[in-house]
Amino acid sequence: MPAYATNMRIKFPILALTLELITIILFAIFVTYDDGSSHGHHAPSNETAANNLRLYPVFQDVHVMIFIGFGFLMTFLKRYSFSSVGVNMLLAAFGLQWGILMQGFWHMEDGKIKMSVLRMINADFSTATVLISFGAVLGKTSPVQLLIMTVLEITIFSANEHLVAEELGASDVGASMTIHAYGAYFGLAVARVLYRPGLRNGHENDGSNYHSDVFAMIGTVFLWMFWPSFNSAIALSPEEQFTAVVNTYLSLAACVMTAYAISSLVEHKGKLDMVHIQNATLAGGVAVGTCADMNIGPFGAMLIGSVAGIISTLGFKFLTPILTSSLGIQDTCGVHNLHGMPGILGGLAGIAATALGKKKDGQAPMQAAALASSLGFALVGGTITGFIMKLPWWGQPADQNCFDDSVYWEVPDDEEENEESLAHGDKNKAEA
Amino acid sequence: MPAYATNMRIKFPILALTLELITIILFAIFVTYDDGSSHGHHAPSNETAANNLRLYPVFQDVHVMIFIGFGFLMTFLKRYSFSSVGVNMLLAAFGLQWGILMQGFWHMEDGKIKMSVLRMINADFSTATVLISFGAVLGKTSPVQLLIMTVLEITIFSANEHLVAEELGASDVGASMTIHAYGAYFGLAVARVLYRPGLRNGHENDGSNYHSDVFAMIGTVFLWMFWPSFNSAIALSPEEQFTAVVNTYLSLAACVMTAYAISSLVEHKGKLDMVHIQNATLAGGVAVGTCADMNIGPFGAMLIGSVAGIISTLGFKFLTPILTSSLGIQDTCGVHNLHGMPGILGGLAGIAATALGKKKDGQAPMQAAALASSLGFALVGGTITGFIMKLPWWGQPADQNCFDDSVYWEVPDDEEENEESLAHGDKNKAEA
Amino acid sequence: MPAYATNMRIKFPILALTLELITIILFAIFVTYDDGSSHGHHAPSNETAANNLRLYPVFQDVHVMIFIGFGFLMTFLKRYSFSSVGVNMLLAAFGLQWGILMQGFWHMEDGKIKMSVLRMINADFSTATVLISFGAVLGKTSPVQLLIMTVLEITIFSANEHLVAEELGASDVGASMTIHAYGAYFGLAVARVLYRPGLRNGHENDGSNYHSDVFAMIGTVFLWMFWPSFNSAIALSPEEQFTAVVNTYLSLAACVMTAYAISSLVEHKGKLDMVHIQNATLAGGVAVGTCADMNIGPFGAMLIGSVAGIISTLGFKFLTPILTSSLGIQDTCGVHNLHGMPGILGGLAGIAATALGKKKDGQAPMQAAALASSLGFALVGGTITGFIMKLPWWGQPADQNCFDDSVYWEVPDDEEENEESLAHGDKNKAEA
Repeated sequence: MPAYATNMRIKFPILALTLELITIILFAIFVTYDDGSSHGHHAPSNETAANNLRLYPVFQDVHVMIFIGFGFLMTFLKRYSFSSVGVNMLLAAFGLQWGILMQGFWHMEDGKIKMSVLRMINADFSTATVLISFGAVLGKTSPVQLLIMTVLEITIFSANEHLVAEELGASDVGASMTIHAYGAYFGLAVARVLYRPGLRNGHENDGSNYHSDVFAMIGTVFLWMFWPSFNSAIALSPEEQFTAVVNTYLSLAACVMTAYAISSLVEHKGKLDMVHIQNATLAGGVAVGTCADMNIGPFGAMLIGSVAGIISTLGFKFLTPILTSSLGIQDTCGVHNLHGMPGILGGLAGIAATALGKKKDGQAPMQAAALASSLGFALVGGTITGFIMKLPWWGQPADQNCFDDSVYWEVPDDEEENEESLAHGDKNKAEA
Repeated sequence: MPAYATNMRIKFPILALTLELITIILFAIFVTYDDGSSHGHHAPSNETAANNLRLYPVFQDVHVMIFIGFGFLMTFLKRYSFSSVGVNMLLAAFGLQWGILMQGFWHMEDGKIKMSVLRMINADFSTATVLISFGAVLGKTSPVQLLIMTVLEITIFSANEHLVAEELGASDVGASMTIHAYGAYFGLAVARVLYRPGLRNGHENDGSNYHSDVFAMIGTVFLWMFWPSFNSAIALSPEEQFTAVVNTYLSLAACVMTAYAISSLVEHKGKLDMVHIQNATLAGGVAVGTCADMNIGPFGAMLIGSVAGIISTLGFKFLTPILTSSLGIQDTCGVHNLHGMPGILGGLAGIAATALGKKKDGQAPMQAAALASSLGFALVGGTITGFIMKLPWWGQPADQNCFDDSVYWEVPDDEEENEESLAHGDKNKAEA
Repeated sequence: MPAYATNMRIKFPILALTLELITIILFAIFVTYDDGSSHGHHAPSNETAANNLRLYPVFQDVHVMIFIGFGFLMTFLKRYSFSSVGVNMLLAAFGLQWGILMQGFWHMEDGKIKMSVLRMINADFSTATVLISFGAVLGKTSPVQLLIMTVLEITIFSANEHLVAEELGASDVGASMTIHAYGAYFGLAVARVLYRPGLRNGHENDGSNYHSDVFAMIGTVFLWMFWPSFNSAIALSPEEQFTAVVNTYLSLAACVMTAYAISSLVEHKGKLDMVHIQNATLAGGVAVGTCADMNIGPFGAMLIGSVAGIISTLGFKFLTPILTSSLGIQDTCGVHNLHGMPGILGGLAGIAATALGKKKDGQAPMQAAALASSLGFALVGGTITGFIMKLPWWGQPADQNCFDDSVYWEVPDDEEENEESLAHGDKNKAEA
């Protein structure tokens, strides 16, 4: 079974070291510090530096969302926490370097990419697309495949982002379209290509346990709290930044209420479901992204958040099972419900808001084109990337090894002997 | 047993959606962005926005305290972690919206409430009162009852806060009186009204396990670290803000030393007790709250923190059992020791400091009146709220289902089968 | 066995309360608020205060690294999480008070130590040395011994730091030499003196379990994210602060790639090892510390980070076992690999960078002297401290009680009965 050769000893180190070496060489050629001028001594002046540092606290909030937020959100799987937080860290750490290059190539000054805090924020943003797609294929792909996906997804993201922001001149301050919808549909396309019939009837490890659900809430809550920073970080003026903070804060608060209400409404005996609480409470941040800096009014933001909480929870309950059974899309984390539909909702809200004149110089047709472009790049790019990831050479876990850290990680013995063995009988399986 | 009808399927969604709908309508009528003027175009100017954004990093620290700090501090119960962090999020997300309205109604400009970052900080503050009271009744109330408590407690808090700050002109920058003492005694009054004789001899789930204690330390440490932001966030001048930061930082550091020392002194064989470490280490932040911005000297702050650590630890050891057995006050998290007594200590320290002239324009009698007012509003408001929460219509968990997530949450199966079943035999109980 | 008298009931409270009392008295005599002048009314002016508050967000990042980062990084031991995060908090809370005094005595103004945010950052820094050394002796020392170590290590650190920064005029913005190398070799010297032959063949509790490894990742990720704040916090100008942020961010990102690659390369079947991921991914932050504010170029920072990730991972795999078996240095957390070698690498990189003119006014010989001084103070200071800690009077855990919280903490019963008893049989042991 060459496709299931899960031994990474040669492939993974070679790929990782090669990618890092190429990256360092490209940095040596192209990247310098932001010195505030188009030519000069390549060291930052105090004024430029102070200007850069103004955004530093917001950058750190975004950084926490990327590394703690996404990383811990995915620890909900009972035997896949090492991979969730660990591979998340790997992809994000490489992705931000790659993102600086890919985004930077569209914005060179004197043939150089100038490192600034804004560029660091955008680099973190570019990794978010990968981490969203990672959620769709979580548990079913190898680190080698995922590094390949990181290279391709960020490259394509940078092209689409340039098209949307610079060519179309569309507004997407919180990136509902260019990050959330793009990342989700890219990941769903990859998941479709990597469809595993053997997992049609589920997998015993494709679920949470009590403590893994609590770990996941660390991710949820940090994402929820710092989302106003995400949606406002690249706003052009203090006025727009402040508006984006207020709108996102209120959208998320309203979203929590509707997500909890609908979770209780659709669940057995009115109980709350952790999957909904961990994910759908965040849909308000996604959906208000595009029009976060627009003058939609506090209650407008709350309306968007309320609707996002409702459709996201309903999606987890009713749509995800259909996608799996009818379309062959196995979406491990339900990114379609957290990033996909709320991202489209955000794009539509942006079209409506610009049409209603809520954004200075905003143009509804350009917003619509940006949404279409993001979805197109995602579906085509994701499909091609999926086929590249499917090449047998990279290796991927066999169906029975999915959702299990022990394929790619040294897992402590006592855990297997003890806590998990009753349910899984791994030790026997391993010895058999 | 209609009072124990724990099925939330109809009640909870209806209540949550109705509250959110009312809130959005009130926001549509009354709330706009801070535009820096009393009349105008209802969009923030760049100058006003930049001014607002100065407080944003401090706001985020407070936000982390509310959602991670309070949420994870309460995860110490071994089978109630979903509710602790999840219901904490629900109450805080609704409470901040309600707090903007209730506090805003006392400070309208041109008939409008202007959203600013300072207002967001104050809204987060208003939710802290609810989360403190939540600690007193943790494990013994339903989400429906707790949403009712949120509405009432924040409404009453806003009235007392207005009286203390505007009418009495008392100083309470870190809110020892208006948040901590108020929240604690409000919650204790509710707990007294909801007294459960059936839990007189304890409950098997009213305790921690090893990992739930570690999760709780996440809450403790984030609260401890960011408390200087809490106590300085609404200070009027940079001078007072800086003083509050230094005083709170030192008070908390000293408090850790005395809390650890006393914990070891009073415990069996000199061992440390996690309950003390998780809670009493924070008492220094509560107790220095009122006089955090006063010129009490670094050593004065350390003295207050040292005393707070001592009385808080002694309270957990000796007073809580008496409150339970003699007064019928079942205080799950011991909020009397963390927020109640240290809050009163903070109020008394504030009276002394103003009497000693440590605060410009501070008046000791007004400080005393503020303390009395906060306690009075808490006890009367909490008692009334408790009786409203006790109405059979809302439903509350039966004694045997207390401290158990599975009443209101879908809990992963494997956990029950596996790890917990040996101790609790829940599965059998459920099937019986 | 008086040396193994683990009952802390008298010793620990007396020591902790005495230390705190002495500290408060010294604060009363020597410490006032920063008022921006060398004489005056001892209350901060608005201008000084505003200036101080500029550094406050960076201070909070460092604070999170000290209390969450170090605290949770060490929770990886399966039965020592209470001590890791709890004793970390104790040592850091006392250490920062002691650090303000010890560092302040070298920088008095008018016979007073002026509290500023910069001083709070430096106080947090001084505790980092202790927490690094704590990692070397984790699980094998009592809180009493560790408080003694805190007093001595910070006192000696302050002398070396003064020598390096003021007398030698060496540059060490991210403290590769004065904190990381110093803390590591100080701790290793202590560990050598406290060598336990009885642990030569390991200990059943000297290892992780699944969830303790996930808890440790909370520490890793927060350290990783906020390291740019650590390395830039005390930079003299915005230009240098910004440069330090960029260099540290990139060094850490590159370090992740090489640490993962080498971990897979050297491990059984190419699997990743959590010990490497938790620790070696951070070596890039340590190694770039000394020259973080120098004009080494983005790719220079990435080269340093890449090398650090490689040597750190190789150190864990090949060097630590040799240190244990041949030199009698039992380094629980492997601080030699995370702080020791990368700290020396940082010092060497600093010598090279100043020799190449990358730092204005930097002098390579002074950098070399600073590295030698830091190592000398560490080895001599650590050895003396080790012998003081070894005095039988303080008490230390017996070999069989090492790595076990239950010696110094009340540990929940149900955990022992349940989850852990299968592996450890503690209950029987305790009853026997």
